[in-house]
Amino acid sequence: MAHALPISPLARPLPELGVIRGVRLGAAAAGIRYKGRTDLVLAEFAAGTTVAGVFTKSKCPGAPVDWCRAVLPHGQAGALVVNAGNANVFTGKAGRDTCQATAEAAAKLAGCPLDAVYLASTGVIGEILPHERITAALPTLHSSLTEDGWEAAARGIMTTDTFPKAAIRTATLNGATVTIQGIAKGSGMVAPDMATMLSFVATDAALPAPVLQALLAAEVKTTFNCITVDSDTSTSDMVLLFATGAANNGPVAAETDALTDPTLGAFRAALHAVLHELAQLVIRDGEGATKLMSIQVSGAVSDLSAWRVAMAIGNSPLVKTAIAGEDANWGRIVMAVGKCGEPADRDTLSVSIGGVCIARNGTVVPGYDETPVVAHMKGQEIDIAVDLGQGAGAAQAWSCDLTHGYIDINGSYRS
Amino acid sequence: MAHALPISPLARPLPELGVIRGVRLGAAAAGIRYKGRTDLVLAEFAAGTTVAGVFTKSKCPGAPVDWCRAVLPHGQAGALVVNAGNANVFTGKAGRDTCQATAEAAAKLAGCPLDAVYLASTGVIGEILPHERITAALPTLHSSLTEDGWEAAARGIMTTDTFPKAAIRTATLNGATVTIQGIAKGSGMVAPDMATMLSFVATDAALPAPVLQALLAAEVKTTFNCITVDSDTSTSDMVLLFATGAANNGPVAAETDALTDPTLGAFRAALHAVLHELAQLVIRDGEGATKLMSIQVSGAVSDLSAWRVAMAIGNSPLVKTAIAGEDANWGRIVMAVGKCGEPADRDTLSVSIGGVCIARNGTVVPGYDETPVVAHMKGQEIDIAVDLGQGAGAAQAWSCDLTHGYIDINGSYRS
Repeated sequence: MAHALPISPLARPLPELGVIRGVRLGAAAAGIRYKGRTDLVLAEFAAGTTVAGVFTKSKCPGAPVDWCRAVLPHGQAGALVVNAGNANVFTGKAGRDTCQATAEAAAKLAGCPLDAVYLASTGVIGEILPHERITAALPTLHSSLTEDGWEAAARGIMTTDTFPKAAIRTATLNGATVTIQGIAKGSGMVAPDMATMLSFVATDAALPAPVLQALLAAEVKTTFNCITVDSDTSTSDMVLLFATGAANNGPVAAETDALTDPTLGAFRAALHAVLHELAQLVIRDGEGATKLMSIQVSGAVSDLSAWRVAMAIGNSPLVKTAIAGEDANWGRIVMAVGKCGEPADRDTLSVSIGGVCIARNGTVVPGYDETPVVAHMKGQEIDIAVDLGQGAGAAQAWSCDLTHGYIDINGSYRS
Repeated sequence: MAHALPISPLARPLPELGVIRGVRLGAAAAGIRYKGRTDLVLAEFAAGTTVAGVFTKSKCPGAPVDWCRAVLPHGQAGALVVNAGNANVFTGKAGRDTCQATAEAAAKLAGCPLDAVYLASTGVIGEILPHERITAALPTLHSSLTEDGWEAAARGIMTTDTFPKAAIRTATLNGATVTIQGIAKGSGMVAPDMATMLSFVATDAALPAPVLQALLAAEVKTTFNCITVDSDTSTSDMVLLFATGAANNGPVAAETDALTDPTLGAFRAALHAVLHELAQLVIRDGEGATKLMSIQVSGAVSDLSAWRVAMAIGNSPLVKTAIAGEDANWGRIVMAVGKCGEPADRDTLSVSIGGVCIARNGTVVPGYDETPVVAHMKGQEIDIAVDLGQGAGAAQAWSCDLTHGYIDINGSYRS
């Protein structure tokens, strides 16, 4: 199924991956839904590993999301189990039982408490996920875990993804060099059917769980929460960040200072870079995507308002189809700004595409020459900038075009 | 351009239209953008005609929307001028000048005050609309106006519409028989480029402008405001309702009683029916539509909450592509309910398609047989019902599927 899809024209090769001391991982073919490919990922974390998580805001979350939310307050991670092919969503008591059984099996293998096991599932909604396939495969998988299992894990969590996604950065923390490495899957922002946004990031930094949580929440806001493929939010989205502490970087700020402590500045920047890169990769594998759209909004009454305007542009089917058609149709950008309900005024609005200011002060720029904009539209990366002329709020968002490929993938997926 | 599109498979023939005493109208080919078809509509109203209007909530409205909003408080209508092919949006002072010149020409021909002229434009954004083409065509057009010009008007306002849209009803008001007749155009809910939702309705009832406004606002809420093709809101949407008073139905309720006065009950029901039918026709001509989706939401904490859930389902690209693919993918409905942020609980949610309850109490219905649902999905009219189990709020919304046709129309329109 997913394998039949051609690789996205926006695909990026995997970077040269490293290891995160204290993390061993791998993948196996458990036959949950796909045939002839891996679909089960297990990661084991060294004792003392802390964890942070950000989850879907859906009011109908999957059972694994409920599980992770319940155990997160303990702040300790020993194992992570992820399966592709079945989301374990809307499965009632059977879904909760599968979580329990899976976590028990993983805890036993990893020698960690039950509430140190994290679970994630992605795939079809509403079908019972038989835990036996998972628990039967876990012991052999566990015995094969290595520090080098990152690429296998990146591939094992794919659904409609057309290429595996990973990113790596290093930073200095209290004089120690720490590494941050993560994987993600897309590929609708989300198709709840066979695609959900999942990302798992690990670092060898030693950071208390509350600090980790504060950093993750802040950086997800400007990365994963600023991308959209189709405006649909999965029942299963999650980003987990694990910190093994193997780098022995010594004590850091308290939770309350996490976002201001200069000691954490380089780490935070590297974390941002990893999350940003993973989020970009998800957009680059957006279902049917042929172009990456970057949207810069300035002059809003607040950053939140700017974000809403940017997402309205990124979510607009009419803007997205215009991008697909290589049409410098700035009128649709004006429409998207106008419709989203945020403070805006036609007469102070300006719109640029590819760095060329097209419209300003309520009308098209006198003598506007479309030639360079038309050329820009033919590229793979489309830059849209809007200034609202209302205040100092700014935000950036990323989206992709809406093409026949999206319809092909989603119009005939399950059947 | 618009003419190249095949007629929607959901099209309906024009009903047998009547006349509205006090309204004369017609269409002409002014060559604004289209060749070889009518693109300019003029209607003239008898002295004493009252008017009500509902307009786009866009923060970047077109110049004609500004014009109508400004004159509406006078409550009197003498003429209506509509053009297709150019929306006169984001055109600065030139756009306002075009409105002024057009209104002056129409006022002179109709012998009415300037502030009794109503204007609407639909078409491309950001291009100057030369008023000369309109004002040059108006005198001949004016001399050709007839009470029978409704079909010509319905055709003259089309852009990407594939069929003309009109509806007619009668009602008894204070013992007099009154007629309500209207036309509309779509056909994205809206593509601001070449499609905008416009609707013009007239009645021979005698109703003060404030009463008319109260009735129109109430009935638009459950008709035009409950349809969506692509979640994009035009800069130019408007619904105008004119009442000529030719039916001499005698005095009615004051504005404050408009929604409760039993005298107005039959009129209100007929108005609702006309607006509902026109709104349905707009959805039936949704860009690329092959299926009409009716969404019934009950058990919400309020009617407003139910409306938001219904619109979230109707706007979801994943639900819409599933409908296009005839896939009874109820998981995507669960996703749409979960993502929209309204009070909902997976464990009290139930989902039905085609009258068959599929999921209830957080899981699929035991023994669920997909066969009748699969058969229902093959039809042209798809019924989705969701009960949230939270309260007594209910709402209904209508949408269409998302197909390759939508991408074709919008990915290559302007260029």
